[in-house]
Amino acid sequence: MSYTPTPEDRFSFGLWTVGWQGRDPFGDATRAPLDPVESVQRLSELGAYGVTFHDDDLIPFGASETERESHVKRFRQALDATGMAVPAATTNLFTHPVFKDGAFTANDRDVRRYALRKTIRNIDLAVELGAKTYVAWGGREGAESGAAKDVRVALDRMKEAFDLLGEYVTGQGYDLRFAIEPKPNEPRGDILLPTVGHVLAFIERLERPELYGVNPEVGHEQMAGLNFPHGIAQALWAGKLFHIDLNGQNGIKYDQDLRFGAGDVRAAFWLVDLLETAGYAGPLTFDFKPPRTEDKEGVWASAAGCMRNYLILKERAAAFRADPAVQEALRASRLDQLAQPTADDSGLAGLLADRGAYEDFDPEAAAQRGMAFERLDQLAMDHLLGL
Amino acid sequence: MSYTPTPEDRFSFGLWTVGWQGRDPFGDATRAPLDPVESVQRLSELGAYGVTFHDDDLIPFGASETERESHVKRFRQALDATGMAVPAATTNLFTHPVFKDGAFTANDRDVRRYALRKTIRNIDLAVELGAKTYVAWGGREGAESGAAKDVRVALDRMKEAFDLLGEYVTGQGYDLRFAIEPKPNEPRGDILLPTVGHVLAFIERLERPELYGVNPEVGHEQMAGLNFPHGIAQALWAGKLFHIDLNGQNGIKYDQDLRFGAGDVRAAFWLVDLLETAGYAGPLTFDFKPPRTEDKEGVWASAAGCMRNYLILKERAAAFRADPAVQEALRASRLDQLAQPTADDSGLAGLLADRGAYEDFDPEAAAQRGMAFERLDQLAMDHLLGL
Amino acid sequence: MSYTPTPEDRFSFGLWTVGWQGRDPFGDATRAPLDPVESVQRLSELGAYGVTFHDDDLIPFGASETERESHVKRFRQALDATGMAVPAATTNLFTHPVFKDGAFTANDRDVRRYALRKTIRNIDLAVELGAKTYVAWGGREGAESGAAKDVRVALDRMKEAFDLLGEYVTGQGYDLRFAIEPKPNEPRGDILLPTVGHVLAFIERLERPELYGVNPEVGHEQMAGLNFPHGIAQALWAGKLFHIDLNGQNGIKYDQDLRFGAGDVRAAFWLVDLLETAGYAGPLTFDFKPPRTEDKEGVWASAAGCMRNYLILKERAAAFRADPAVQEALRASRLDQLAQPTADDSGLAGLLADRGAYEDFDPEAAAQRGMAFERLDQLAMDHLLGL
Amino acid sequence: MSYTPTPEDRFSFGLWTVGWQGRDPFGDATRAPLDPVESVQRLSELGAYGVTFHDDDLIPFGASETERESHVKRFRQALDATGMAVPAATTNLFTHPVFKDGAFTANDRDVRRYALRKTIRNIDLAVELGAKTYVAWGGREGAESGAAKDVRVALDRMKEAFDLLGEYVTGQGYDLRFAIEPKPNEPRGDILLPTVGHVLAFIERLERPELYGVNPEVGHEQMAGLNFPHGIAQALWAGKLFHIDLNGQNGIKYDQDLRFGAGDVRAAFWLVDLLETAGYAGPLTFDFKPPRTEDKEGVWASAAGCMRNYLILKERAAAFRADPAVQEALRASRLDQLAQPTADDSGLAGLLADRGAYEDFDPEAAAQRGMAFERLDQLAMDHLLGL
Repeated sequence: MSYTPTPEDRFSFGLWTVGWQGRDPFGDATRAPLDPVESVQRLSELGAYGVTFHDDDLIPFGASETERESHVKRFRQALDATGMAVPAATTNLFTHPVFKDGAFTANDRDVRRYALRKTIRNIDLAVELGAKTYVAWGGREGAESGAAKDVRVALDRMKEAFDLLGEYVTGQGYDLRFAIEPKPNEPRGDILLPTVGHVLAFIERLERPELYGVNPEVGHEQMAGLNFPHGIAQALWAGKLFHIDLNGQNGIKYDQDLRFGAGDVRAAFWLVDLLETAGYAGPLTFDFKPPRTEDKEGVWASAAGCMRNYLILKERAAAFRADPAVQEALRASRLDQLAQPTADDSGLAGLLADRGAYEDFDPEAAAQRGMAFERLDQLAMDHLLGL
Repeated sequence: MSYTPTPEDRFSFGLWTVGWQGRDPFGDATRAPLDPVESVQRLSELGAYGVTFHDDDLIPFGASETERESHVKRFRQALDATGMAVPAATTNLFTHPVFKDGAFTANDRDVRRYALRKTIRNIDLAVELGAKTYVAWGGREGAESGAAKDVRVALDRMKEAFDLLGEYVTGQGYDLRFAIEPKPNEPRGDILLPTVGHVLAFIERLERPELYGVNPEVGHEQMAGLNFPHGIAQALWAGKLFHIDLNGQNGIKYDQDLRFGAGDVRAAFWLVDLLETAGYAGPLTFDFKPPRTEDKEGVWASAAGCMRNYLILKERAAAFRADPAVQEALRASRLDQLAQPTADDSGLAGLLADRGAYEDFDPEAAAQRGMAFERLDQLAMDHLLGL
Repeated sequence: MSYTPTPEDRFSFGLWTVGWQGRDPFGDATRAPLDPVESVQRLSELGAYGVTFHDDDLIPFGASETERESHVKRFRQALDATGMAVPAATTNLFTHPVFKDGAFTANDRDVRRYALRKTIRNIDLAVELGAKTYVAWGGREGAESGAAKDVRVALDRMKEAFDLLGEYVTGQGYDLRFAIEPKPNEPRGDILLPTVGHVLAFIERLERPELYGVNPEVGHEQMAGLNFPHGIAQALWAGKLFHIDLNGQNGIKYDQDLRFGAGDVRAAFWLVDLLETAGYAGPLTFDFKPPRTEDKEGVWASAAGCMRNYLILKERAAAFRADPAVQEALRASRLDQLAQPTADDSGLAGLLADRGAYEDFDPEAAAQRGMAFERLDQLAMDHLLGL
Repeated sequence: MSYTPTPEDRFSFGLWTVGWQGRDPFGDATRAPLDPVESVQRLSELGAYGVTFHDDDLIPFGASETERESHVKRFRQALDATGMAVPAATTNLFTHPVFKDGAFTANDRDVRRYALRKTIRNIDLAVELGAKTYVAWGGREGAESGAAKDVRVALDRMKEAFDLLGEYVTGQGYDLRFAIEPKPNEPRGDILLPTVGHVLAFIERLERPELYGVNPEVGHEQMAGLNFPHGIAQALWAGKLFHIDLNGQNGIKYDQDLRFGAGDVRAAFWLVDLLETAGYAGPLTFDFKPPRTEDKEGVWASAAGCMRNYLILKERAAAFRADPAVQEALRASRLDQLAQPTADDSGLAGLLADRGAYEDFDPEAAAQRGMAFERLDQLAMDHLLGL
């Protein structure tokens, strides 16, 4: 199998990823700005099918209308020339100091109104460029101290904001859905809607829940010590995996945004296995940061590595599922029984009447059965390592 | 103010808390078993209003019908003698080795059926004893390795189980609601429904969502590095805080179950502030483990400390909210603006038409405004420390 | 007791703390630069006794000799005018992109040589300004990936660098000691010498170990989930607590640098208790970042809060130790026995010959004794909360 | 290459690993006790070369002299029959309730004396059985609350204990060294000597430092979020890696003791690379727990997996180091320059006089150089995955 990506693989990159200049909390930029047009060209050459962007990635904050048009025009030309798609876009509601206390949930009402208008403006552009998904990461919606944010009231404002956006998109007749991105902390001490679960729950209280899904990012869940494939599984189960951000993270610490495959490669293996098994058909977007030690050549090496690793893991996961020894091991671990309903056609009544289920059940004997998970997991390890 | 609890404070304890014998992964029991009757008496003397229990706390696993009746009878007599309530109960689906791979989501179908019957049996007893809430902690629903559990399928089984329980409770006409308790890990490597958010989201896919809420435990959320009061706020916002388990935890590590107030006392302060402000009217249940260094006297000292600390923090939070300097500081931090809707009566149309919201908004000027959170937080610190 | 600091309290602040402009990984500066002279004046007015600095805090990177002299002159005048001391100083070896792969352990040899010369230059200035301690934080000494740094070889380079600095300081006859500051990660994926323990161990392999100690920072140890007072105790035990950086942190996540007292206030209580009990006589330096939500007024409120909280906790710790009930509780917990040597004058021979120590010792009976720690800890809580 | 282990691979297992019955904080044993003789036989068949043990693994706590002799005799016969070695042994100072507050640092002096005698007794047996290393894990040396342990005083007791043991071993003329095992927490809230660094530092204050080294365990360092290979590198650099415990862990949470290779397999790859490159010649001991879902067959599958994974990673690491493309990439990342001293023969004087090192050094130009780490790390990934 080839590990060279093609557009059929649906790989996409944020402009802000390869374009990251390496500014971090303790250091200045190590790389020059990257022209979005160059990013489109290079990513296309590397085999990606699309790019995503924040408004400010494409059009510098505060640009005039004329500058804006010029930036959009050049970008569109690059898309046309390469055939690259824009599957999704998003708003930058975190870099400018005006958002220091949040955007949709800023205590200052005028900041909230401004944030909504900034978002709506970029939704128009996103739709114009063909995006079907609008990602929303509320990186500044949170607090460092207890009284600074009344969380119940802030959730009212968050709901109000998303309901207004839903009303707008519906009113415009846009074919666009929202994917809300959770993160537990950084840059705020605690961020609202910190995990996949919290976002899924929040969506259910919106006016048009069908318009909203989740955009999980590998590292964000792992920053809370959560099992990423488990979170994705619950999102898929709820019918809400509208988008995904792929990267790498080494456990609970600051947000590392390593290339996909770096960090916990076993979790990456199970993730790819899940996405491919579940038939997830959306874009596979990499939201990573090439380390600031790298020059431009290193940036492209890092981007290429993201895609290569996905393809390697895809091959390994497929081989794992196809292996008769694995299939036998899955049966030995009774995964087939898990797929059977617990009740039979007789339902609750039958369960209650079944003496074999309780009165005559021998828990001591049942407890003797080994689950054979270690053998199964070693088979997975062997497949991951290409044995 | 007195810090001596009375039944009006609605403090309750699990039998398994003061009754914990101190067995841990590396050590044997350090304390003798405690008779549930003695626990009821002593907790009543200390000022609690109720106790909760797992079936196996009250009636040893595998007891005969006669033994069962005798245990229940003695317990009921102790309740009657003391006036103690049983606001909630729960099922032990984790201690016996038969549950080593889970209960409602065990791969083995007969184990799942047994788990449901065991639960239903204890629901009957819980209702008989007056419980209005049935807690469900799926401590063994999870996995240590990737292929051992198909999470989407496991969530199907979890839903099936809760739907069957809901059908049973409805069919019986019981006045009982379920409170599902999240935990990220331990004793399984990763547990399904790991946080408050994941439980809230799961509930929405059940047949009778109104029957189910969440039972958050302080330490369980803190084991994922999450802000506990924030999670409680989202549960309250969703109308789903059906029960709460109070204890202490020192950050991300094994489940410590310290007495309430130990661990992160500032989070405890904000939690009490929230519960009291929001008018949470359910039982305040302590789910802690007196450290195994303690003898019986230390057990009761630890239990008394849980209640004392709640009452101290309640007093401090009330003083904080009543302080005119705090109220002024809250306004200086524009919490009043957060409570105002972002849109006005003109709704989305008005927002879109408002040039002041975007075209004429000066983000640079707005960014100059300080939020004054540090002053506010120091006021909170002063109140916490009783200055 | 008054909580208004005076120079006798030995509080000092880094210029970079109150001067932090609020640039973070996701956001631009929210505050204008602060003139070091203004910082000296305001901190003096607030009751501090000293300031510390990185070379680049005082003299912008790349300044000419003339500019340098002018900056130093103004700073010195401010010190003279206020009577503020410079107890310590340090080198910025992390902000400029040339240090992207480290300073003393950069793979590039010329960067390592440059870093040493930059350090030596600022050592001269530090001594000139009266500093007795030179802090060294190797924030960029580390790696994000496994082969990028040969750690054993990097430790050779680290040792070489500190030995050269020791040779320099000794040769110059400077009365200056080094305090090496550990941190586990951020801004590098993993930083060398990640904890107090690793630094203490490293020092023992240097040519002049007596010249080097540790500079622990509250949040840095808590980012590894370690008990900060325990680490300080080991540093004191080793005679190596040469300096300390005080701030606040909410557990394992990105480096928060909250004001002292925020975060884990119980750990802060035990820390102050330890420093005061042990007679630590060095400067009490705050290394915090006023949150970027704050304007200049908030910066000074935050700085004042650091000192206020230390003084409150100092009062509470002293009251705790002076309380006869606490002293009795300490005896009940047998802290007095811990202070007794395990062997008696007969030494090992006596221990081996003592049948009471083993053959006739009854572990079952001994195991019955409760440690009474819960009562003791509740007394500490009461004192912390000012009851 | 074959992944079937032989005694030449120096793999050893603790009796308590395969013998773990699956008792955890929330559940009872799932497996019957395992006869140490059976463990010796099966491990030998699987290709191990040795076993290690706690005194109580071999001889139940409280056994009579006669029973003791009988247990030792059977064990020795099994060793003789299989040719299995006992490279190391250790003391159980944590299971019995008498150790609930510690052993060498228990507040109760008689417990400390008992702990020393228990240890000395097993040292005699260890030496008799040929052990060259005596492991010491102080799992109960710690505290859950701040006043319960005066850490400086406790370190005095810890030093006293190890000095007495060193005196004993020296006096007996035993060829035995100690390997002290760090762990940050669990079963105590905070354990003394929490990381490799803290142990390395502690050793330097002992009377006979040459007798003591460190016994790091993969999961224990990872429970503090530390990079395990980095810690091992510092231990090797200090000449103190006397023993090692291999297992797997999924980040910061309870102690999982997964089989080696599970958890962070990339860290495992770098660890094996380091041990093999550094020529570590001690035993490779697996200190893991077969999950309690497993029956006896699963136990042996899990044990076999530990060894298999080590051998696979050893092959992969060797191929990585032998690959010319890797060697070129290492040079491109200037690892060769890291190996060069920073100073040249002219030493400090030469460095100070070298204008090229500072006055004429162009940091802007130097900052342009990319480190090429991403390409290097992708080569490592490819080798790990067997491409």
